Amino acid sequence: MNLNTEFEQAREAGRKLNMLSKERIDAVLRAVADEAEARSEEILEANRQDLERMDPANPMYDRLKLTVERIADIASDMRNVAALPSPLGEVLSRTTRPNGMVIEKVRVPFGVVGVIYEARPNVSFDVFGLCFKTANACVLKGGHDAQCSNEAIVGLIRGVLDREGIDPASVTLLPADREATAALLGAQGYVDLLIPRGSSSLIRYVRENARIPMIETGAGICHTYFDRAGDTEKGARIICNAKTRRVSVCNALDCLIIHSDRLSDLPALCEPMAERNVIIYANTRAYEALKGHYPERLLEHATEESFGTEFLDYKMAVRTADSLEEALEHIARYSSGHSEAIVTEDVEAARVFRARVDAACVYVNVSTAFTDGAQFGFGAEIGISTQKLHARGPMALAELTSYKYLITGDGQTRA
Amino acid sequence: MNLNTEFEQAREAGRKLNMLSKERIDAVLRAVADEAEARSEEILEANRQDLERMDPANPMYDRLKLTVERIADIASDMRNVAALPSPLGEVLSRTTRPNGMVIEKVRVPFGVVGVIYEARPNVSFDVFGLCFKTANACVLKGGHDAQCSNEAIVGLIRGVLDREGIDPASVTLLPADREATAALLGAQGYVDLLIPRGSSSLIRYVRENARIPMIETGAGICHTYFDRAGDTEKGARIICNAKTRRVSVCNALDCLIIHSDRLSDLPALCEPMAERNVIIYANTRAYEALKGHYPERLLEHATEESFGTEFLDYKMAVRTADSLEEALEHIARYSSGHSEAIVTEDVEAARVFRARVDAACVYVNVSTAFTDGAQFGFGAEIGISTQKLHARGPMALAELTSYKYLITGDGQTRA
Repeated sequence: MNLNTEFEQAREAGRKLNMLSKERIDAVLRAVADEAEARSEEILEANRQDLERMDPANPMYDRLKLTVERIADIASDMRNVAALPSPLGEVLSRTTRPNGMVIEKVRVPFGVVGVIYEARPNVSFDVFGLCFKTANACVLKGGHDAQCSNEAIVGLIRGVLDREGIDPASVTLLPADREATAALLGAQGYVDLLIPRGSSSLIRYVRENARIPMIETGAGICHTYFDRAGDTEKGARIICNAKTRRVSVCNALDCLIIHSDRLSDLPALCEPMAERNVIIYANTRAYEALKGHYPERLLEHATEESFGTEFLDYKMAVRTADSLEEALEHIARYSSGHSEAIVTEDVEAARVFRARVDAACVYVNVSTAFTDGAQFGFGAEIGISTQKLHARGPMALAELTSYKYLITGDGQTRA
Repeated sequence: MNLNTEFEQAREAGRKLNMLSKERIDAVLRAVADEAEARSEEILEANRQDLERMDPANPMYDRLKLTVERIADIASDMRNVAALPSPLGEVLSRTTRPNGMVIEKVRVPFGVVGVIYEARPNVSFDVFGLCFKTANACVLKGGHDAQCSNEAIVGLIRGVLDREGIDPASVTLLPADREATAALLGAQGYVDLLIPRGSSSLIRYVRENARIPMIETGAGICHTYFDRAGDTEKGARIICNAKTRRVSVCNALDCLIIHSDRLSDLPALCEPMAERNVIIYANTRAYEALKGHYPERLLEHATEESFGTEFLDYKMAVRTADSLEEALEHIARYSSGHSEAIVTEDVEAARVFRARVDAACVYVNVSTAFTDGAQFGFGAEIGISTQKLHARGPMALAELTSYKYLITGDGQTRA
């Protein structure tokens, strides 16, 4: 499929967005929020067409479904984004060289951001809001299941843009087919950044086929290490929160590592999870420690597959470690580099853990459930990066910008 | 080819480097510099084997060739890198959240950096120096033509590392064949960042085949726009410097755009280039303006191919524009986003040019020849990025780092 016309128009729209004032950008975001609420019935009608094609028993059904309340939340989120400070134009550094020329490093938009996602139509609003706030045009490739909803949403946004005198190509919805994805992955020279959001198979497909810069988001295989010097009460709270607050999210706990000197505290650490029916896959020593203290129907022996698995369910692996070193080795081997935590009152153990663990977010005595743009105080989030290039961990407005160098002088030449 | 053992060892070495103190890193860099000078004869002997296989008339011959003086320069560069401040551990931000947890964003190494390059053996020393300074292990894939030299250099470095008690896998030289390149491009989970340095065909190959994050370097199609309000004397100096200082580099001028009101100044602007035998490809109006003023043997009519070409030679395109807007459109169409300049005394024209031009380095009344890490005061350079993700323009030590978030609390959980 040749989508070069669409990509070219997006690039051109991005160039024009870069010239808008911040006040104008925020006013347009508020206008879109108002329009979404005023015309929510149209969006819901389109959404119903999508819902009719899906089995209500499908776990995606709830993600696909919009309601008046959800649209009000979406509009409220967009007004919040409008109210956030813009990172654009920030002077990141400024130096005067010996020859008198001044070098400024200034934040600028990427230009065009492509986002590939699945069945959540609210993502169309979210991505537009964050990209528009940072003066990036966006090219959206949503899931086939949500195409009617996405068409209604993007049509509504483009209508507002047009009315406001802004190029509607600032947001483009691609057809919901594989050919469009392939075209987007190869849109070299048009799309400056690609962010896939969704299942690990989608992310893998993008990684293997993209010819343009991308940011990997997604898989979180998260550990919490209860150290020899861990506080049992804090540990029980942190572990239960990280595991059960929401099991379907990437920051949820997958594997508890407990120092073998503290095995007698394992029943207390796991106790809050019994009433939430969390199935525990324990290695031999942990199994012995839990036996008789944790419901038998929820206690199983760990196998090799229990480790390095993102459960996204009321399931958790537990293993023992004879030392901090052994815990660090396990984490280095199985972590996806997302969120890792230690529970300890030992300052030196915390220092070593913070230094040695290679992950986007490294926690000391805090639940990994906080890995989230809003919780970090960013006011928004476009995804959680699991790569190290450009952005790591929760990504918000600043991560949707690049920079350029502005060099000013009065005739300097190089010897 | 299965190089997973090498990649695994590099990853392990990178983890250990991250634990070294800055003082220790700098001492090892100085030891490598000393060893390179002390054993320069061994390196030169290996280099002679490479040179014997190459026709001395080949333009690559000079790039391949090492001498005692070049090795002294390499050693001096490495001592300079040792003397630079390390970016590691820098706290990029620190916030305390309402629940009392503290979030710090701290610079950390990538882990393993892969670099693919061609016939310059000095790159082996340079890349090792910059990667080691930032506690990254490096995996090098050099050109076949330089393999003997590279083996001698990497062997020497690994000898020093071993003696200093540091894992020699901190630097790994891959075989100089296509299979090794393919393995490196697919080293997902082992290599955190890939930087290709060399011809545009090499860069294109990497872009199309890499499954790990990469930074594009290279092609510079650079313009200088002489505005209606340009100063002729400054313009003549800047244009000649940008074109002729070194024609083989990516920041060299490829196309001069002149405001049509200033056509009568074109002969003066081009005059210094006549004695350097620069061939000018001029559009019709520029040709008419130069005719009789610029040597006929050096003056040709521009064709469509004259624009958007990186000449890397004593050749330059010249075209007229009736407005700043027209010049900006030409640049947006043909620029590679590397370095672009305006010559003007008009503050408003400079403001518009700086805001509108989408390039890594945007110059006002300065030669584009300054796009270079050393000239920017970075003290070093690993390449010049032409992409917008992570790094743009000259890249040095900070660009060889990522970051992680360290979150500290006393039992916080998320509601």
